[in-house]
Amino acid sequence: MSIAIVADKTTLKLQLRTYTESMDINELALELHKKFGGKITLALRDTGEMDRQKLSAYYSPGVAAVSKAIATDKSKLPEYTWTNNLVAVISDGSAVLGLGDIGPEGAMPVMEGKALLFKHFGDMDSVPIVLDVHTPDEIVAAVKAIAPSFGAINLEDIAAPKCFEIEERLAEALPIPVMHDDQHGTATVTLAGLINACKLTGRKMEDLKIVIVGAGAAGVAIAKLLHKYAGPRMFAVDSKGVLSRDRTDLNDSKKRLLEFTNQSDISGSLEDVLAGADVFIGVSAAGLLTPAMVKTMDKNPIIFALANPDPEITPDDAKAAGAAVIATGRSDYPNQVNNAIAFPGIFRGALDNHVRQITDEHKIAAAEAIASLVEKPTANEIILSVFDERLVPAIAKVIV
Amino acid sequence: MSIAIVADKTTLKLQLRTYTESMDINELALELHKKFGGKITLALRDTGEMDRQKLSAYYSPGVAAVSKAIATDKSKLPEYTWTNNLVAVISDGSAVLGLGDIGPEGAMPVMEGKALLFKHFGDMDSVPIVLDVHTPDEIVAAVKAIAPSFGAINLEDIAAPKCFEIEERLAEALPIPVMHDDQHGTATVTLAGLINACKLTGRKMEDLKIVIVGAGAAGVAIAKLLHKYAGPRMFAVDSKGVLSRDRTDLNDSKKRLLEFTNQSDISGSLEDVLAGADVFIGVSAAGLLTPAMVKTMDKNPIIFALANPDPEITPDDAKAAGAAVIATGRSDYPNQVNNAIAFPGIFRGALDNHVRQITDEHKIAAAEAIASLVEKPTANEIILSVFDERLVPAIAKVIV
Repeated sequence: MSIAIVADKTTLKLQLRTYTESMDINELALELHKKFGGKITLALRDTGEMDRQKLSAYYSPGVAAVSKAIATDKSKLPEYTWTNNLVAVISDGSAVLGLGDIGPEGAMPVMEGKALLFKHFGDMDSVPIVLDVHTPDEIVAAVKAIAPSFGAINLEDIAAPKCFEIEERLAEALPIPVMHDDQHGTATVTLAGLINACKLTGRKMEDLKIVIVGAGAAGVAIAKLLHKYAGPRMFAVDSKGVLSRDRTDLNDSKKRLLEFTNQSDISGSLEDVLAGADVFIGVSAAGLLTPAMVKTMDKNPIIFALANPDPEITPDDAKAAGAAVIATGRSDYPNQVNNAIAFPGIFRGALDNHVRQITDEHKIAAAEAIASLVEKPTANEIILSVFDERLVPAIAKVIV
Repeated sequence: MSIAIVADKTTLKLQLRTYTESMDINELALELHKKFGGKITLALRDTGEMDRQKLSAYYSPGVAAVSKAIATDKSKLPEYTWTNNLVAVISDGSAVLGLGDIGPEGAMPVMEGKALLFKHFGDMDSVPIVLDVHTPDEIVAAVKAIAPSFGAINLEDIAAPKCFEIEERLAEALPIPVMHDDQHGTATVTLAGLINACKLTGRKMEDLKIVIVGAGAAGVAIAKLLHKYAGPRMFAVDSKGVLSRDRTDLNDSKKRLLEFTNQSDISGSLEDVLAGADVFIGVSAAGLLTPAMVKTMDKNPIIFALANPDPEITPDDAKAAGAAVIATGRSDYPNQVNNAIAFPGIFRGALDNHVRQITDEHKIAAAEAIASLVEKPTANEIILSVFDERLVPAIAKVIV
């Protein structure tokens, strides 16, 4: 399944065409979804002939023995049911891709798509669940209510800041792993890429000056994970400017970032803190970073322009302005920071190793595992393609 | 898939063995569940190679076009997502098979088994959802919250009387069909069998005297549906005796049965009302009906002894006591009243024909369709085997 972009010219060409002529990928998407009537379906594990005896064992009366065994000892649930390989992909549709709050129905194709990714990359079963409730209390109650049906929970496309509270409360309340992938999938892959970018440019993570633009789900999670990993000097920036102690408009999650960002207490704009920075990490909006701004950064800066589908700066512009290494969220440029590099392996490991909570230590171990798969980082490869088959087993192994 | 029991001697032999040596089917059940790690798994509808372009269409960025189309017009949800073929099988584990209130985890193998039946008999996708909440308010809230994820909802193994309120409130609140199968699947197949039992014994439904023993989910639904269909004379009996107006211990659903049962206002025991009855319908407990009691009924009585796994009276005993036709819940006797005869076709039709509510008229039409598939009813065949392939299309056609 490992596909080298350059070797597969046909795919690359199609890929480039679909990105440059954006209508095409949309048309193809509508066509494929309609043709197949969705993306996933149910199948039976036992593909042998289903005779009366088997039906009597899989359903009444035989199944009663299985139910009794589990009712007596709940820890047997994964032994006898599909929960051993099952992730719920849950969203309230409040922050879907770049589309915003489009509601549960609109979110469904994305959640079903995530189920396709779980199957394709991690051979895991999953069920897309879209919620018609929207407050943290309601979402927590609904997810807790259905939780015994699943082996793990992947929260998806839930708006910040409520996503932080919801994930924390569920992780604490439930005996199964809960992860908001928009936060931690992105943060894990970003850390992996940054480990190799440091290696490539001869930097140490703890000495970096990092500017993170975007203080939503991904930005907050990246800042937290980098802090935990190496405690570099960081500044977080949102649409109003640098997060600073004199701002009165910060929500709780942004306020908490001030515990370890902007220690020099600078107020101002992105430009004010970007000067001399080693690293720019954008999870914000297209075109936000100009070549002139890149030129104010430290020599050979590291640029992670992760806004999707259009990055904060194009790789060509970033390179021309002096960037040593560039990552984006797109598959048609080198170094794609794609959640799907991390989440299949993380959930695979959590299920296989009966991990009850996915911790910062797990995410760091996953990032290191991802980074270490690139033996000799280059500007064109600080991170593997999502299609690389080594990823899932290497990550799953460290989620223990 | 149509299997004639007599023609398939091996299967029949196994079947009889597993029923007579009851440990065997339990052992087989535990073994099969463990071997396969549950019964269902996820598969992709598009079984072609999943290249980069397809992934870009099924997931980001292409899927955004599909999400936008649905967010703009929610009625397009089934066109583009698997909800077009998807039933949620939902239980709180409060009345699982004959095991009672064993909780959500214990219920999981049964719900997963129901998903297997949906796939096997109706080629429908379904998702087993077990709920860790137990009051009607909580269950209704949880199901409403997740409802946009599904095309229809099958409530299962929820205890009476709360099952009635929960189903009513959900059916009213949701834009998709909701059916509690323990009630209506059983009632539909019972009505189908009774139509042919009347034909066979030269009776008219409206002239019957019917005694229903068991006033839980199935008993109440059977009484209601028979009343709606033909208004026969009926008596309902629970563990305390005949439901009568002088009883002070009746819950709301039992009280409502008095609107159309026991019109002669008799107080007493099963024996008191069974004398002279044309039909006994038991959804109660093993061995409750004695041959002596059968002999007090009308000549050539109709006996539906549906308690599972052990009927209220064995077919041999009932026959010896003069019964003209006997149905049970078991697959190793003729005339199995099995929910799986009705529910796959009912849900198949509801999904295919975009039916928003499953009404009494639907259940009656389904019962008539099931009955009419037996061209010439005999004592050994008033109802087809659940394996008969004509059932699903014949039923689905009338759910419009």
